[in-house]
Amino acid sequence: MVTSSVVNTYPLSSYTFGTKEPKMEKDTSVADRLARMKVNYMKEGMRTSVEGILLVQEHNHPHILLLQIGNTFCKLPGGRLKPGENEIEGLKRKLTSKLGATVPALVPDWQIGECVAVWWRPNFETIMYPYCPPHITKPKECKKLFIVHLSEREYFAVPKNLKLLAVPLFELYDNVQRYGPVISTIPQQLSRFQFNMIAK
Amino acid sequence: MVTSSVVNTYPLSSYTFGTKEPKMEKDTSVADRLARMKVNYMKEGMRTSVEGILLVQEHNHPHILLLQIGNTFCKLPGGRLKPGENEIEGLKRKLTSKLGATVPALVPDWQIGECVAVWWRPNFETIMYPYCPPHITKPKECKKLFIVHLSEREYFAVPKNLKLLAVPLFELYDNVQRYGPVISTIPQQLSRFQFNMIAK
Repeated sequence: MVTSSVVNTYPLSSYTFGTKEPKMEKDTSVADRLARMKVNYMKEGMRTSVEGILLVQEHNHPHILLLQIGNTFCKLPGGRLKPGENEIEGLKRKLTSKLGATVPALVPDWQIGECVAVWWRPNFETIMYPYCPPHITKPKECKKLFIVHLSEREYFAVPKNLKLLAVPLFELYDNVQRYGPVISTIPQQLSRFQFNMIAK
Repeated sequence: MVTSSVVNTYPLSSYTFGTKEPKMEKDTSVADRLARMKVNYMKEGMRTSVEGILLVQEHNHPHILLLQIGNTFCKLPGGRLKPGENEIEGLKRKLTSKLGATVPALVPDWQIGECVAVWWRPNFETIMYPYCPPHITKPKECKKLFIVHLSEREYFAVPKNLKLLAVPLFELYDNVQRYGPVISTIPQQLSRFQFNMIAK
């Protein structure tokens, strides 16, 4: 794990993007998703998920890579840990599943940096909080966001049913309607970092 | 400077509060404040301000100490650095000025922790952003928020014209109307810390 308050960001154009087989969502509705969460909770206890913040730069401003599903919904690459799985190893596995090439030699050597935010789901509902609310002794999910330090050149393979977008911080900021509470406050969580914008 | 992802928090009742002479605001209106900012910018360049996040606990939930001016406006203890002043030393000076006893022996030995957020003021206006917006080469202010690690017992002297409030994270969260964009997103910025709630 890399802990540094300096994050090197390279131009979007220094990365190469290809496609791979679709990664379908496991659920087709929010209700299905919450029902599956309940079943898994009974079997395995609190769900822990990990997501990566991958940064690039354009016009000297940091941009975050988001996966877009359909026309509106955006999410960070990541997913649920297996019971007992290490967070860092689990995040690497999920990043490879979402964005890594199918040829192992081309998969990035993921450098996981600091945890920048932790969100809690108190109930089997969509709402999450950046703290475990008082009186909640059995939260249903804990989601952790980590910085991912990208190298100067990488190849990303994007599942055919998804789009990979580079979204500037100024677009995310104060835009809870479009990006939801977790992604729209990433600019605040990254504000303490110094971005070393490396030109091509 | 203390860098730790664990923050010990003690009950509010373990602290003692007294009063001291009023600390009047230098400006009586937002317009006055922005005008003074402009004059200072001409003389000294970009303003750097530092503020402290002082944490206590109540009912096993973290609370932040805020200074209330009048009936509505709340701010973190802190203020403007002198030109060339060290951030950590400047924050200690400001914390003592706002909350320290007038008897030097009773002033807390301030333990400044990590910087958790940085906000930028691009123009002589009230709006600030958690990044320096693209195309802004001469921001007018940079404000940094630091965790302050409190000891188990401290004495705080509160200026008579101000009230010191302990506000729970759940009250700040998603409450930009009441607390503004900087203070209302402190819960997200603190979410990565582990609070070690120490009972009395």
